[in-house]
Amino acid sequence: MRHIALAACFTAALPAFADPLPSWNDTDTKSRIITFVEEVTDPAADGFIPVKDRIATFDNDGTLWAEQPAYFQLVFAIDRVAELAAADPAIAGSDALKAAAARDFAGVLASGEEGLIEIVKASHTGIDTEAFIASVSEWLATARHPQTGLLYKEMTYQPMVELLRYLRDEDFQTFIVSGGGIHFVRAFAEEAYGIPPQNVVGSQVATTYEVAGDGTPSLIKQPELFFVDDKEGKPVGIDNHIGKRPVIAVGNSDGDFAMLEYTTAGEGPRLGILLHHTDAEREFAYDREGHIGVLNRGLDEAEARGWVLIDMASDWSRIYTGAR
Amino acid sequence: MRHIALAACFTAALPAFADPLPSWNDTDTKSRIITFVEEVTDPAADGFIPVKDRIATFDNDGTLWAEQPAYFQLVFAIDRVAELAAADPAIAGSDALKAAAARDFAGVLASGEEGLIEIVKASHTGIDTEAFIASVSEWLATARHPQTGLLYKEMTYQPMVELLRYLRDEDFQTFIVSGGGIHFVRAFAEEAYGIPPQNVVGSQVATTYEVAGDGTPSLIKQPELFFVDDKEGKPVGIDNHIGKRPVIAVGNSDGDFAMLEYTTAGEGPRLGILLHHTDAEREFAYDREGHIGVLNRGLDEAEARGWVLIDMASDWSRIYTGAR
Repeated sequence: MRHIALAACFTAALPAFADPLPSWNDTDTKSRIITFVEEVTDPAADGFIPVKDRIATFDNDGTLWAEQPAYFQLVFAIDRVAELAAADPAIAGSDALKAAAARDFAGVLASGEEGLIEIVKASHTGIDTEAFIASVSEWLATARHPQTGLLYKEMTYQPMVELLRYLRDEDFQTFIVSGGGIHFVRAFAEEAYGIPPQNVVGSQVATTYEVAGDGTPSLIKQPELFFVDDKEGKPVGIDNHIGKRPVIAVGNSDGDFAMLEYTTAGEGPRLGILLHHTDAEREFAYDREGHIGVLNRGLDEAEARGWVLIDMASDWSRIYTGAR
Repeated sequence: MRHIALAACFTAALPAFADPLPSWNDTDTKSRIITFVEEVTDPAADGFIPVKDRIATFDNDGTLWAEQPAYFQLVFAIDRVAELAAADPAIAGSDALKAAAARDFAGVLASGEEGLIEIVKASHTGIDTEAFIASVSEWLATARHPQTGLLYKEMTYQPMVELLRYLRDEDFQTFIVSGGGIHFVRAFAEEAYGIPPQNVVGSQVATTYEVAGDGTPSLIKQPELFFVDDKEGKPVGIDNHIGKRPVIAVGNSDGDFAMLEYTTAGEGPRLGILLHHTDAEREFAYDREGHIGVLNRGLDEAEARGWVLIDMASDWSRIYTGAR
């Protein structure tokens, strides 16, 4: 009996010794991350950081899930306009909206920034926040990526989901700091990443509080921009929402540069991590060129700044949470 | 031995049966609050609310600490201008700033809204967020209320500190949703209330990210207003920062009406609580009149809406956390 009990003890203790990042290859990248986390969570180490200060911030597009060939939120916006126009064709009152209603992606891009703004307004505003989030959830339940055939929400990165979980197991609070829309990301962040709405920072249109004739209050998303949580906006968004400098910041593009710069300029141990998309076979390969996820300054300065550069092709043994 | 161990067990278990709100008299108010919390945290009850949705939001001025005869943040602003003007008299370049520099409170009020804005700009902007928070902490360490002689930070309400702690013990996440400045409140909320910076929502000036010549980044508070977290702004601030409708909302003035309205319009059990300042002897008595903490609509509608109205004089056995 005694031996059985003892064996049960050891079995129960085993998970503590299990690999916290099983989808990461045993490279220098993985060991640098684990060494950092062990250092700051070891009460006997010089770099020990108390639980209340363990803040980790993650970009979303291109960091926690894929972003090619277009931001998934843009695909949602176009699908949403097409859906609204199917119910009421009068909605498609401009070239950009007509293109969106026809799911003509090239036509949408040809409509330029002004066209994109029209599409975002038509799909994201004049609606209460709860109804908007429901429309995103509905879309995510069935919308599939044209190249992978996966649901968009299955194109979250398994290694990053493991990193988030590992950090929370080590008493970090994990936040998303996204250039994407705050309500859009909140629609799936809890299910996809274990990150609740209050830990999501993002770009926002203005919201107004309105009380209907029957006394029912709601929060309506307006066409005016309120906050852009990108580039220099990311440290500002962190200050607005968190009020503490992160210990770890993770991104993939120059839109995340300021977040990593701000984070790693703090006193004591800090960790900046950039995901370099190097895997044309399993995901996408891109960095210095293109419209999305451009990484120039980050590539140039990561080493000198002591930031970890993840090489997706060699550092990750698995890419998506969704099976392929 | 066995009996001793058993006794130790019972002793250790005792605090669970202790009164969670010892500074509240045994009135209907106290029992309504405890009954509500017990209902929503009992897995067998109809109104059970899962831990992740247990959000409670509290106004600060007049709800968690006193606000008479002037908002403490205004006193800070005046003291700060006086301090800055002592170092550089050129700062006092207007009637309002001259009055502040002389700590002439009547003169400050006489300068009207425009004067107050000048004083807030001079004391709250053109400074990085960390230095600003340090200046608030420094002020709070020594500044005393002229009537009570207590440090301002000792004029937090003991019954509310107990309520916050009780809610957290029952796995609620407690947030401050204040019309006051977000950085001002963050300077003391963790020490005073156990509420960390990321759980503080407040009014804000714009913040910009700036990198000095030596590469040091900082966040600078600008003179432009960014968000007013008062009245209809409170539900908006809750949506921005929390992204979930609270289960419990606590306030004291009509500035909190929309927050309580939004909260208690949610499905399932919700609790709105208003603190009525009825205690001229131990604190202050005020409601429908004056410049601060005006409570009209709340008084008129609390009963019909099922909100709990705390009668400070009869419901609280002790007022301040600071000893008098």
